[in-house]
Amino acid sequence: MALIVQKYGGSSVADATSIKRVAKRVAEAKRAGHDVVVVVSAMGDTTDELIDLANQVTPMPPQREMDILLTAGERISMSLLAMAIHNLGVDAKSFTGQQAGVITDEAYGKARIIDVSPSRIKDTVARGEVAIVAGFQGVNPTTNDVTTLGRGGSDTTAVALAAALKADVCEIYTDVDGVFTADPRIVASARKLDRISYDEMLEMAASGAKVLVLRCVEYARRYDVPVHVRSSFSTRTGTLVTNEAQVNEEGELVEQPIIAGVAHDRSEAKITVAGVPDVPGKAARIFEVVAGAGVNIDMIVQNVSAAATGLTDISFTLPAADGSKATAALTEHQPDIGFTALQYDDTIGKLSLVGAGMRSHPGVSAKLFAALSEANINIEMISTSEIRISVVTRADSLDDAVRAVHTAFELDSTEDEAVVYGGTGR
Amino acid sequence: MALIVQKYGGSSVADATSIKRVAKRVAEAKRAGHDVVVVVSAMGDTTDELIDLANQVTPMPPQREMDILLTAGERISMSLLAMAIHNLGVDAKSFTGQQAGVITDEAYGKARIIDVSPSRIKDTVARGEVAIVAGFQGVNPTTNDVTTLGRGGSDTTAVALAAALKADVCEIYTDVDGVFTADPRIVASARKLDRISYDEMLEMAASGAKVLVLRCVEYARRYDVPVHVRSSFSTRTGTLVTNEAQVNEEGELVEQPIIAGVAHDRSEAKITVAGVPDVPGKAARIFEVVAGAGVNIDMIVQNVSAAATGLTDISFTLPAADGSKATAALTEHQPDIGFTALQYDDTIGKLSLVGAGMRSHPGVSAKLFAALSEANINIEMISTSEIRISVVTRADSLDDAVRAVHTAFELDSTEDEAVVYGGTGR
Repeated sequence: MALIVQKYGGSSVADATSIKRVAKRVAEAKRAGHDVVVVVSAMGDTTDELIDLANQVTPMPPQREMDILLTAGERISMSLLAMAIHNLGVDAKSFTGQQAGVITDEAYGKARIIDVSPSRIKDTVARGEVAIVAGFQGVNPTTNDVTTLGRGGSDTTAVALAAALKADVCEIYTDVDGVFTADPRIVASARKLDRISYDEMLEMAASGAKVLVLRCVEYARRYDVPVHVRSSFSTRTGTLVTNEAQVNEEGELVEQPIIAGVAHDRSEAKITVAGVPDVPGKAARIFEVVAGAGVNIDMIVQNVSAAATGLTDISFTLPAADGSKATAALTEHQPDIGFTALQYDDTIGKLSLVGAGMRSHPGVSAKLFAALSEANINIEMISTSEIRISVVTRADSLDDAVRAVHTAFELDSTEDEAVVYGGTGR
Repeated sequence: MALIVQKYGGSSVADATSIKRVAKRVAEAKRAGHDVVVVVSAMGDTTDELIDLANQVTPMPPQREMDILLTAGERISMSLLAMAIHNLGVDAKSFTGQQAGVITDEAYGKARIIDVSPSRIKDTVARGEVAIVAGFQGVNPTTNDVTTLGRGGSDTTAVALAAALKADVCEIYTDVDGVFTADPRIVASARKLDRISYDEMLEMAASGAKVLVLRCVEYARRYDVPVHVRSSFSTRTGTLVTNEAQVNEEGELVEQPIIAGVAHDRSEAKITVAGVPDVPGKAARIFEVVAGAGVNIDMIVQNVSAAATGLTDISFTLPAADGSKATAALTEHQPDIGFTALQYDDTIGKLSLVGAGMRSHPGVSAKLFAALSEANINIEMISTSEIRISVVTRADSLDDAVRAVHTAFELDSTEDEAVVYGGTGR
């Protein structure tokens, strides 16, 4: 008997039929003797429909009101799910983020969880009932107003609640079978991973893998919550995200594969600041200006200075969504930075190879570059962490690059696995 | 400068366009120098759609979850309205029933307001902002769970809030121009009343007039809150519901009209318990059984006992919706009551003539019966209060009866008034 936190995304509770299927699954876990806490997202497209309504009313909705509006979505799905479970003869009660004790800061629209005090959830579980909790929301204790957690917020709610309840596992139900070695829509032979470490999952999420958001994985790692990513449409085992050192039944350390997977990201753009005087402090000034516009940058390359002119070029990548903010800020500061031209390029792609085994296996980057070279793919930028190598390519050669690297590192599946893949809920 | 509580029903906020129109109205009142608190219902058919979703999930939704589900409706409308007002340059914040301090008992689905502590609303108004409050909902302080107030609940929220805030007036915006001397769908010459007393409005509401629910009028009378019923689709003055004694500008008592209006009700049925032994205690036993089934009865008639048999017939009216409950209970107790037969008739109609002036003007009932007799309408049952006379007729002669009485008491409009009439929100 275990305490299980289950999280179901929007596509898993899209309509009455789906809600009844989820209810059956919850009731089965309960009848198998487990204590069950369920975190639920809004039904299907509810959130988009509410955003659309807000936009019909005003082009600039105040964020406090936007959060009140959006939290209506989980209120609907959570109460319907509680009813559906109740209908199967299992007692269930639903709770808002506030009632579940999810305390956040006051950054409406992208609040961070600062504490979870789930006394009502504990009481409910102790009474033998299933507790259903609204994902994606919390309360700002200063004003007692509701807040939302931003994209992937329900996953974060589930992991935070699992940590506070000291749950045995946090099951994230989604519309894919688990975490894959690459996006199966690009690499047909991608394999589902049985397990992946927190660090690897963090790098995958930061590099464009959409199955879990970064903040959720950070939370799981910090509180050591085992996360089981699995499909709500099958009973297959998914991917266990857990700490690195694992022992098998004989007490031996299980050997880690060198490479976990290949992630890709099409959402970045590249800005090149050309003709920057090659004197100390100029690069710092550029990144100050960009940071001042609230834009996070990812990779940076500085060209070797042309001795004749004393000028250099600095390129960096950033989320394409922030492109106009960053170029506007730089153009405004052109006089004091003193560059000659600004180039903006949103036709780039980023490929990242992630694996904890890189630490102890030299030669991974050499093999990566060789594979890309053989496939005739040009590398424009490179960045590395201890367990990741990322390269920027042209956007239109990204798919080929992912396939070439996947094959070169022998990640291709040899079995004829049935693979399900799609987007995830929030 | 006054403190105004405005309430907008579901049809007034049915879509983004309507919400923007309401926002404009609120902003105008604010710019005219008034403090404004707005109570809002769920948008258009939202509540029905949510009930439909619940029924798709389970035939017997637990009432606690049903209330959580339904309160999502006001959450959506209140935040959208706050956004729309904000967009007009007027600061506005929305609050749930709980945040507005609406404390109820724990009768989920039909909770009664037991206290209103609107400190957050007072603070908001004091800051010069408009406060938007979700109607129809409150919080059960024992469990901190949300409750709903049942039909007409948003009107009750508005009046309760107006009482707690000591507002100068509570404006109930609806899709009709005010309270009419009769339903204009039946009586084309019905007139809008400029004012009506609490007592008269109570009798009208209890007798089938749909414009305000009974509980809301009771609350207004108890706390002496002037209620202005008016259309959200025009700027015309509506009907002021207020206490009876009114003085004009010269300090003279304004004369009351004898009759306020004619209400009708098609929602009742009649049960006749035939062949009841005419001995003490039998009638009491019948009404004990009916009350035990949770059914409220309205009018009662006992026939004169036939001396030969020592048996009598007892007829009473009740909401037709409770018909099967009442007949089942009576049939179950037939042995101990000892009646011979039960007749159920749901083809009756009830007409009620309401007017505070009846107290001092004899002859009203004689005039009523004469008018019905002239129109060849048979009276099956009669009941009276100090300011009301009700009669039961055949359902198919009810419209004729209403028109005949309306004309006999000279209530017909002589002007060519444009009349708007329809249902009300919840």
